[in-house]
Amino acid sequence: MSTALEIAPALQVAQWLNTPEPICLEGSRGRVVVLHAFQMLCPGCVTQSIPQAKRIRASFAGQELLVIGLHTVFEHHAVMNAEALQVFAHEYGLSFPIGIDQPAARGDVPLTMQAWGLKGTPSLVVLDRVGRMRLNHFGHVDDLRLGALLGRLLAEPVAPDQAPLP
Amino acid sequence: MSTALEIAPALQVAQWLNTPEPICLEGSRGRVVVLHAFQMLCPGCVTQSIPQAKRIRASFAGQELLVIGLHTVFEHHAVMNAEALQVFAHEYGLSFPIGIDQPAARGDVPLTMQAWGLKGTPSLVVLDRVGRMRLNHFGHVDDLRLGALLGRLLAEPVAPDQAPLP
Amino acid sequence: MSTALEIAPALQVAQWLNTPEPICLEGSRGRVVVLHAFQMLCPGCVTQSIPQAKRIRASFAGQELLVIGLHTVFEHHAVMNAEALQVFAHEYGLSFPIGIDQPAARGDVPLTMQAWGLKGTPSLVVLDRVGRMRLNHFGHVDDLRLGALLGRLLAEPVAPDQAPLP
Amino acid sequence: MSTALEIAPALQVAQWLNTPEPICLEGSRGRVVVLHAFQMLCPGCVTQSIPQAKRIRASFAGQELLVIGLHTVFEHHAVMNAEALQVFAHEYGLSFPIGIDQPAARGDVPLTMQAWGLKGTPSLVVLDRVGRMRLNHFGHVDDLRLGALLGRLLAEPVAPDQAPLP
Repeated sequence: MSTALEIAPALQVAQWLNTPEPICLEGSRGRVVVLHAFQMLCPGCVTQSIPQAKRIRASFAGQELLVIGLHTVFEHHAVMNAEALQVFAHEYGLSFPIGIDQPAARGDVPLTMQAWGLKGTPSLVVLDRVGRMRLNHFGHVDDLRLGALLGRLLAEPVAPDQAPLP
Repeated sequence: MSTALEIAPALQVAQWLNTPEPICLEGSRGRVVVLHAFQMLCPGCVTQSIPQAKRIRASFAGQELLVIGLHTVFEHHAVMNAEALQVFAHEYGLSFPIGIDQPAARGDVPLTMQAWGLKGTPSLVVLDRVGRMRLNHFGHVDDLRLGALLGRLLAEPVAPDQAPLP
Repeated sequence: MSTALEIAPALQVAQWLNTPEPICLEGSRGRVVVLHAFQMLCPGCVTQSIPQAKRIRASFAGQELLVIGLHTVFEHHAVMNAEALQVFAHEYGLSFPIGIDQPAARGDVPLTMQAWGLKGTPSLVVLDRVGRMRLNHFGHVDDLRLGALLGRLLAEPVAPDQAPLP
Repeated sequence: MSTALEIAPALQVAQWLNTPEPICLEGSRGRVVVLHAFQMLCPGCVTQSIPQAKRIRASFAGQELLVIGLHTVFEHHAVMNAEALQVFAHEYGLSFPIGIDQPAARGDVPLTMQAWGLKGTPSLVVLDRVGRMRLNHFGHVDDLRLGALLGRLLAEPVAPDQAPLP
C-alpha cells in the first residue's frame, strides 16, 4: 500500500516571506513538514488554522519538524496581494516561512493548490520524513488528533528504505 | 456635570458599506449608538471587537440601538483600502453599517479618529440617546460591563431635557 | 402591568455560608439582587453559572448590587450536603453569600425552589430594587443580555412609588 | 537509558466504577495507558483534565489505548467518598473506568498516589505498551504535546524486546 502514497509534488511559489532562502521540499527530507494553506481574509484560517500553526511551531521548536504557510489565493486576488500578506504576517506575529502560491496563467486557482488537489482554505497537509503526503485535509483538525499524527511521523525512521508502511 | 459631556462631533466618512444611506449621528438621536473603531488587519479587532459588535447587533435587534463600524485606518493604508474592506466585511459576514473614516490631507490619522481622540484600534465608543459620548475606550470592554452600560443608557429618556445627569 | 409583577417570596434557607448574618430579601430593598440557584455537582452550574456569578460580583463591586448563591439540592441529597458544599465553595474560591435551600419535609424539592417555581439548575433570578422578580430563567443567560438587564435595573429609582412600569 | 525507565507499580484501588472487572496494568500490556489522577472537587481537574480525558477516549476509540481515571483523594475525604464520586461520574457523563485510590492506613495520601509519586491533582500519567511510565506530570499538558506523545507511543512495537529506547 505504501506505493500508493505518492511523494508530494514540488511547491510552486511566487515569493517567500520569513525565510532568507526559498523552502524546497526535496531539501526538507528527513523532517516532518506541516503545511497550512490559508487565505489572509478567510475567517476559519485566521481564528483556527493560523493559531494552530503558531502552536505547532512553539511546541516542536528545535525538533525535526518544519511549519510552512502557503498563501493559496483563489478569490479576491486584487486585495490579497503580497503587500497585504506582509502586513498580515507582521500584525499577526507570524514567524514561520510563508510561500505565495504561484498564480495560474489562466483561472483563479494557483498552481500548488491545483497540483495538490486542495479543496479550499484552510487546508492542512502533512508530509512524512520521506516527503509522502500523509494528510491532506480541508478544514480544521483538532490538536489531539493532529498531535498524534505528528508524534507518529516523528517516530518514523529517516531513511526511505526504513520507512514503514503507513 | 452634564454640561461637561459634550455631544460627539459628527462622523467624517469617505464611504459607507452595508447601508443604502449615509449614517448621520444627528439623525440617530433617540437611539443609543455603539461604534466599533477597527482596522481589518488588527488581530484584537478581528478576534474580539468584531465578534462583540455582531453579538450586540444580535442581542439588541429591533431595539433602540444602532451598531456602527468605523474603519479608522492609520497605518498600512495601501492594503487596507475600500476594496479590501468590502471583501473583509463579506467574508466575516458583517451586516451592520461600516463607515470608512475620512483620510486626512496630511498625516496618517483619519479625521474622525482625530476629532474623537481615538488612541488606536480597537476602540469602543458609546453615545447616549442625546448624542453625548458616554464611553470612549481603547481596547476591549467585557460583555458584562458593556451590557450594563447599554442597559442603563437604553433606560434613559429620549428627550434631551429629560436626560439625567450621568 | 406593574401589579402583575409580584414581590419575590422570602428565602427559606437552612444555613448560610460566607456571611456573618443571614441574608434577608426584605433587608436588601434598594439593591438589585442576582441569585444563582445551583447544585455543586451540576456541570452547567460549575462551568457557566458559577463563573458568571463571580464575574458579576467582580464587575459590580461596591455598587448597589447583591450576588447570592442558592444551593437548591433536589437530587442526590446525601452527597451534596452542607459539609460538601463548604469544601466546594472553598476550592472554587467563592466569596459571595450562599444559602442552602431548606429541604422539604416531604419530597426532594427544597422550599425556596418550590416557592419560586424554579425548574432546575442552573437558574438565574434577578430582583429589582423593590424586590420584584424581573427575571426567572432556567439555564444560562449570556453576559451581554444579563448585563443589559442589570444596567437597566440599577438605573431605576429606589423608592417603590418611583419604580417604573417594567 | 531504557533501564532507568521503571515499570509502573501496580494500581492499588479500593473500588472500580464503569468497568465490570477491575483494571490491572499487567493485563493491559500491549496498550498505551493514559491515567488521569483527579479529585472530584478540584477545579483544575473539572475544567481541564476531565474534559481532556473524554476527548482522548473519543479520539482514540477502538485503538490500542486505554483511558483510566484515578480518584486520588488526599484531602476532604469525608465528602469525596465513593457515593459522591458515583454521582459526579454520572452527572459529568464519564464512561471510562475510574478507580478509587486505596486510602492509606495512616495519613491522608492514598497508596497509588504515594507509590507513583504524584504531587497533587490533576496529574497525568502515560504508560507505554510495555508498562513503563513515560510521563508523570502534575498539572495540565496541552492537547498538541500530549497527542504527539500518544502518537509516538502508539507507533512503538508491542513486544518488550522490540521496544525502542525512549
